[in-house]
Formats: sequence, structure tokens, C-alpha cells
Amino acid sequence: MNVVNLMDRFDQINQYWSPKIIGELNGQTVKIAKIMGEFIWHHHDDGDELFLVVKGRMTLKLPQQDVILKEGEFFIVPRGVKHKPVSQEETLILMFEPHETLNTGDVRNNLTIDLPEKL
Amino acid sequence: MNVVNLMDRFDQINQYWSPKIIGELNGQTVKIAKIMGEFIWHHHDDGDELFLVVKGRMTLKLPQQDVILKEGEFFIVPRGVKHKPVSQEETLILMFEPHETLNTGDVRNNLTIDLPEKL
Repeated sequence: MNVVNLMDRFDQINQYWSPKIIGELNGQTVKIAKIMGEFIWHHHDDGDELFLVVKGRMTLKLPQQDVILKEGEFFIVPRGVKHKPVSQEETLILMFEPHETLNTGDVRNNLTIDLPEKL
Repeated sequence: MNVVNLMDRFDQINQYWSPKIIGELNGQTVKIAKIMGEFIWHHHDDGDELFLVVKGRMTLKLPQQDVILKEGEFFIVPRGVKHKPVSQEETLILMFEPHETLNTGDVRNNLTIDLPEKL
């Protein structure tokens, strides 16, 4: 049982698109990531996924729309919905999702991280 | 599927200790509240509860310690652990917990809110 300071945890991340676990509760996981550039299109069959922008700005590309998220804004991507996170600047995000959720969803490639590190 | 701006949602709250639902995913609920003063000692048998301070400062009194949370810090109270939220200034908090979690836990009194409003 520890206090988690978000900025202290972000300071420990030195790689983009590499989610880290900073909390676990009720079978769900709190993750953070630094992102910049384009991720890949993917979806998660078994879990809804919340994206909260802590600092910066991102776009969640969805099949029918682009969702723009500024600092202090979140969006929940329902399970099964394809999405592609994109950011033109370094952006700090917090995610909330089931423990089993894989960062690349239905895709497996060099971006896939099977066991995210705990910070 | 809407973008949720935290500050816009907090602006809609004009009562302390009255949690509002601002998101739902995976059987869990994202709630926010404005708090000031002292809440009551209570616990939740069936759910862990995350408290994130968005603005201000709070203390989570626990049986063995006082946990101080500043802006950008969170703490997860494990299920079954008694806690009492306290804040000496107006503080904006975000909570993450199972959908069924009652704000006063095992206690039922005039602070109990059975069906939190959705914002």
C-alpha cells in the first residue's frame, strides 16, 4: 500500500509506447505510458480501455472518427472497437484496463509487450 | 462514446461528498467528487477503491496510518480496510471502484448515496 505520484512514475519511463503498471485493483490495471508518433491499429476483444491524458495531447483514431484528447480529458474505447493512438508531441497518458489486456491487442509484432514492468 | 473533460465535470458539482459517475468500463465505475471536511469511517467488503487527487490535498485515515495525497497522487484502499477521507481544503478527487460500491460502505446514514448521478 503505497502512495503513487504520477509524475515521479512518468520520470522513470525513457521509452515511448512502453506501458508500465503502477496500480492493480479489482482485476484491473492502472498503466502509464509516454507516447509520441503513431501506434498501430488494434482492438481488444475482452476489455474496455480508458485513456486519460495527464500531459500533452493525443488523437485516438477510431474507424468512424478521430477523438482528440487534451490534458485532463479521457475517453473509453469499448471492447472490440479498433483504435490507433497517435500523438504529435510527447504525451503522458494513464490507462485503465483489465489485467490481461495486451498493448497491441489482436496484433502481435515488435511493439508487443507481454509482461509490462511494474514501477 | 464521449470525451470526458475532468474540470468541466467538476464544475457541475456543487455539493461536497456527493460522488458522480463520469465513466463505466469492465464493471468498474469512474467517479469524481468534491470534498472538504471529514467523511466517516467505513469499508467496502467487495471492492478495492482508488483515490486520485486531481486538485487540492486530502488525508486518507487508515487504522494504522494517515496517508496524505497531494495533487497527482493516488492510493488504492484494499477491500475490507477501514478508511476515513478528510480534507482541510476543497479538494477534487477521482475514484475508481466496482460499479456496486456504496460511498459509505458498510455504514448507512444521511451521507449514503444509493444511486450516484451520472454527469
